[in-house]
Amino acid sequence: ESVARQQNVPRLPPDTNRVEFDQAIDELKQILGEEHVAVNDKPLVDGWYMEHPNTHDAFHIALQEDLVSSAVVYPGTVGEVQDIVRWANKHKIPIYPISMGRNIGYGGTAPRVSGSVVIDLGKRMNRILNIDAENASCLLEPGVSYFALYEEVQRRKLPLWIDTPDVGGGSVLGNAIDRGVGYTPYGDHFANHCGLEIVLPNGELLRTGMGALPGKDGGDNPTWQSFQPAYGPYSDGIFSQSNFGIVVRMGMWLMPETGHQSYLITFPRDEDFPDIVEIIRPLAQQRILGNIPQLRHVIQELATTARPKSDFYDGIGPIPRDIIREHASSLPVGDVSWVFYGTQYGDAASIATQLDSIRAAFSKIAGAKMLLPGDLPPSHYLQSRVSVCSGVPVLKELDWLNWVPNAAHLFFSPIVPTRGKDAQVVHEIVVRLHAKYGIDLFPTLCVAGREMHYIVNIVYDRSSLDEKRRAAVLMREMIAETAAEGYGEYRTHILFADMVAGTYNWGNNALMRFNETIKDALDPNGILAPGRNGIWPKRFRGKGWEI
Amino acid sequence: ESVARQQNVPRLPPDTNRVEFDQAIDELKQILGEEHVAVNDKPLVDGWYMEHPNTHDAFHIALQEDLVSSAVVYPGTVGEVQDIVRWANKHKIPIYPISMGRNIGYGGTAPRVSGSVVIDLGKRMNRILNIDAENASCLLEPGVSYFALYEEVQRRKLPLWIDTPDVGGGSVLGNAIDRGVGYTPYGDHFANHCGLEIVLPNGELLRTGMGALPGKDGGDNPTWQSFQPAYGPYSDGIFSQSNFGIVVRMGMWLMPETGHQSYLITFPRDEDFPDIVEIIRPLAQQRILGNIPQLRHVIQELATTARPKSDFYDGIGPIPRDIIREHASSLPVGDVSWVFYGTQYGDAASIATQLDSIRAAFSKIAGAKMLLPGDLPPSHYLQSRVSVCSGVPVLKELDWLNWVPNAAHLFFSPIVPTRGKDAQVVHEIVVRLHAKYGIDLFPTLCVAGREMHYIVNIVYDRSSLDEKRRAAVLMREMIAETAAEGYGEYRTHILFADMVAGTYNWGNNALMRFNETIKDALDPNGILAPGRNGIWPKRFRGKGWEI
Ligand SMILES: Cc1cc2nc3c(=O)[nH]c(=O)nc-3n(C[C@H](O)[C@H](O)[C@H](O)COP(=O)(O)OP(=O)(O)OC[C@H]3O[C@@H](n4cnc5c(N)ncnc54)[C@H](O)[C@@H]3O)c2cc1C
Ligand SMILES: Cc1cc2nc3c(=O)[nH]c(=O)nc-3n(C[C@H](O)[C@H](O)[C@H](O)COP(=O)(O)OP(=O)(O)OC[C@H]3O[C@@H](n4cnc5c(N)ncnc54)[C@H](O)[C@@H]3O)c2cc1C
Repeated sequence: ESVARQQNVPRLPPDTNRVEFDQAIDELKQILGEEHVAVNDKPLVDGWYMEHPNTHDAFHIALQEDLVSSAVVYPGTVGEVQDIVRWANKHKIPIYPISMGRNIGYGGTAPRVSGSVVIDLGKRMNRILNIDAENASCLLEPGVSYFALYEEVQRRKLPLWIDTPDVGGGSVLGNAIDRGVGYTPYGDHFANHCGLEIVLPNGELLRTGMGALPGKDGGDNPTWQSFQPAYGPYSDGIFSQSNFGIVVRMGMWLMPETGHQSYLITFPRDEDFPDIVEIIRPLAQQRILGNIPQLRHVIQELATTARPKSDFYDGIGPIPRDIIREHASSLPVGDVSWVFYGTQYGDAASIATQLDSIRAAFSKIAGAKMLLPGDLPPSHYLQSRVSVCSGVPVLKELDWLNWVPNAAHLFFSPIVPTRGKDAQVVHEIVVRLHAKYGIDLFPTLCVAGREMHYIVNIVYDRSSLDEKRRAAVLMREMIAETAAEGYGEYRTHILFADMVAGTYNWGNNALMRFNETIKDALDPNGILAPGRNGIWPKRFRGKGWEI
Repeated sequence: ESVARQQNVPRLPPDTNRVEFDQAIDELKQILGEEHVAVNDKPLVDGWYMEHPNTHDAFHIALQEDLVSSAVVYPGTVGEVQDIVRWANKHKIPIYPISMGRNIGYGGTAPRVSGSVVIDLGKRMNRILNIDAENASCLLEPGVSYFALYEEVQRRKLPLWIDTPDVGGGSVLGNAIDRGVGYTPYGDHFANHCGLEIVLPNGELLRTGMGALPGKDGGDNPTWQSFQPAYGPYSDGIFSQSNFGIVVRMGMWLMPETGHQSYLITFPRDEDFPDIVEIIRPLAQQRILGNIPQLRHVIQELATTARPKSDFYDGIGPIPRDIIREHASSLPVGDVSWVFYGTQYGDAASIATQLDSIRAAFSKIAGAKMLLPGDLPPSHYLQSRVSVCSGVPVLKELDWLNWVPNAAHLFFSPIVPTRGKDAQVVHEIVVRLHAKYGIDLFPTLCVAGREMHYIVNIVYDRSSLDEKRRAAVLMREMIAETAAEGYGEYRTHILFADMVAGTYNWGNNALMRFNETIKDALDPNGILAPGRNGIWPKRFRGKGWEI
């Protein structure tokens, strides 16, 4: 996977030359120590999830060396992060903070502006600063992964759960800042954070929420992890999915452990889709569905076996529906179409009642069938949902990356109302465009209540320029077509950030002009993550950076 | 109650003279129509809750005519709000938007800077723009009260609840913007809003959330009321408790109706307080407590009878504990100390199980006793909680304003962790300072989970300058003493805004400097609600306005 680089190395930051860059880097090494600054001039290695590079986007959709940093820097303290920010302002060099950089499918560790200096916060700033068992909360640095937090909670034998995404190697802080999702009742990660500490683009340090009120005798505020908004404007939201600050500490709520029961429900026909959604809506709205359940297609029953597509089909193009059917028949769930993965919480009696209501509700669809973990073999995907949905991080979800050789993937993530006819509109666009570009469709609908994150995993062979091109065009067409119907993405890969931001253009781009006003006020030199989420500071705006 | 004014009328905006003011007002009348602009030059009338003035703070804690507007303007459309904002920028006249102005106890309709022009949004902009029964949500203008929304939901026979504060006459939008609270599972009003439309201080119009993505064929976005944050920085929070924009439309989630059972639990001894809080914590954290319950003191059993204090006690100073005891003995709950008001939700079987767990948990406190509505007479306060906690707005809570003649009140509202020892620290400060200033203590702790809003209602006779002075000094001392222990207010009367904002001073006032940066970027002329929540625009900053 290590490929010789074609372009000049290192890739310089914009508006600088080699001499200036080298001088600036020398200065940075003086501040942080030689060993904590690495110029990005070696061959690029894609690695894998647990050993991912911080030099480029390991799941490249452009050329491997298109989105690269000039250097990576490893601060060890909040003060050093402030030093780096002041250094960047002095030299007008863009910096790009990541917590752990496992933002795979959305850009990984790559900066939006090539040649930026990536600040890898997580490598050295990885302390669990506090776990408050009484308050069921914690205070974390950027480098704390779900696995690390989970292990510490276990070590201390606390009756607390952590909410984890499908894969547990990411940063609890980084994922929340990017407004990621998990699958327990605490699945909306940003909604369950409480209190931030932020280095602003001018190098100043800010605490939000109750943290802005000093604790007794100079300690932390005793309610910093208890109450989110505090007094005055509640600013935390503008530090999510943005380039307005570097979050160096975050409080998170932990869930008190409780009884749980995972299950799946299968539906026989592809056309059941809108009806399934109609049944989900009231259940979700009434909070009968305890967690954030997922609705998946039977193709994922094949993919989550971790077997390659070639095991099932050796033709070209997407695997045909009848071939899926044929193989599904011999898999545990059988020849079905949609599969709903849910979990209920509480004591045994209450769970039994809940399962009864849910079974009854879905039984309106002919052939719907509920299965419990005991009905399925130990290797079945549902067993890993039992973990995820009870706060135990896993890696199982990576299995479907075996589908094609050199697999990389891209997420397409529109928000659709939990309403059959709307979901159907989006689904039809997605189905049609996948067929058009000859790509297998892996849909996962994460049900949050009044809406669903309709997550499409576009899996492609990153050694094939043709597959990359088709994946990227598919992405652009899906963004455009769904936007024309009024549906927008909640998150996207950095390469599509401008386009997605551009769909949020009501009132002559009022939102973007508002974001730009704030960006320019906070970051006059435009050094912090220019272009992230489509927000370009004055220095870059309208100068050809947007794509 | 109508008193002749001593000071010049109208009170002019800062930095202007009568001629300039009259010219500006003439211009405003031309834009909006003569009848929609009223100069504030008549005697001030305090009125009562349902007929409150928009000329001044009806619950004045300063002199009645200290906090007054120069004029009140009534826009009828979003375009007119924009016109008013442009007018204000042209004349540099501060404007102060209110939705309905029932923010009683926090400043009512009074602007922070006297002589500002109050924009009374609610009078004419009071349409329910949409109720989406499937999505369980609505889209509202500022003038929609809880009563009005409730009636429309009933008229349409929808199986939906609205969450209401203790009193139902306020604006659903205004209360949410000020981050008010109610008592069903949807009690955190700002957390249950979804989508804003905002006139910015430069007159531009912004839609946040999914509303920023145009719907099909120019309609509203189909997910505007389904998903809060959308893509990019989530900005809604900075428009709550702030002076960064005028909210002209807000989406709110409505709760699907369900079974409910209200109850109260009495505790015999004042000293039970920290133990009660310790029992509440796990119940709240595990979400066994279905709603936002309240913990009150038995003195409120006297006050909520709507009888005046003089019926119970004719001495001077606070009503002594033994006199409370004596009267409580003949009231339905008897000679108790603390009273916990809760409500559980779901079907009958599930409620029964919940009540069992709650009864068992509190039974650790000797003498704790659970009473249901059927155990109490129809006039008892619990009966009105049944309404409030099942989405029916009421006025009952006003009853305790009969406690003293000419009653006004002031809220002291610190956030305390749901932890006995912390709550006790705050409680002791509050008790001691109430005794010091000879004022009856009415505490209401609203339990939100990891924290409680410890709301103290300071009731005073607004015709007594001495009572006002004592109430104000009490307030300042409580703010200072609790801040020294690390506890801060979530909301406060406009007169104490600077002081409360000043307690959030971590890192050399980093938060305030941050807020000021944003304020100056969005409102360079400093026209929008200067001083609200302690945020002063450049034009006013450090020029003696802070108090
Ligand atoms: C198989 C698979 C399944 C996945 N399932 C899920 C899922 O269920 N839910 C989900 O949410 N995601 C999922 N993802 C996507 C992704 O892996 C996770 O979201 C992951 O947690 C993000 O990486 P990270 O936590 O290391 O964050 P990072 O990569 O460190 O951060 C994400 C982005 O946020 C910004 N950022 C990070 N830290 C800071 C900071 N301190 N200050 C300012 N900005 C910062 C940066 O722009 C960065 O690129 C999945 C990915 C794969 C491969
Ligand atoms: C007996 C009693 C009990 C109470 N109980 C509760 C309770 O349980 N919960 C609770 O939350 N409150 C309570 N209150 C306080 C208050 O009455 C309510 O919060 C009430 O809803 C606020 O008034 P309003 O809704 O009319 O808002 P407004 O007065 O219209 O708005 C409040 C403030 O928000 C700002 N604002 C309003 N609209 C806009 C806008 N469109 N754009 C920008 N800024 C705006 C203004 O600064 C305004 O002063 C109680 C009051 C009393 C007297």
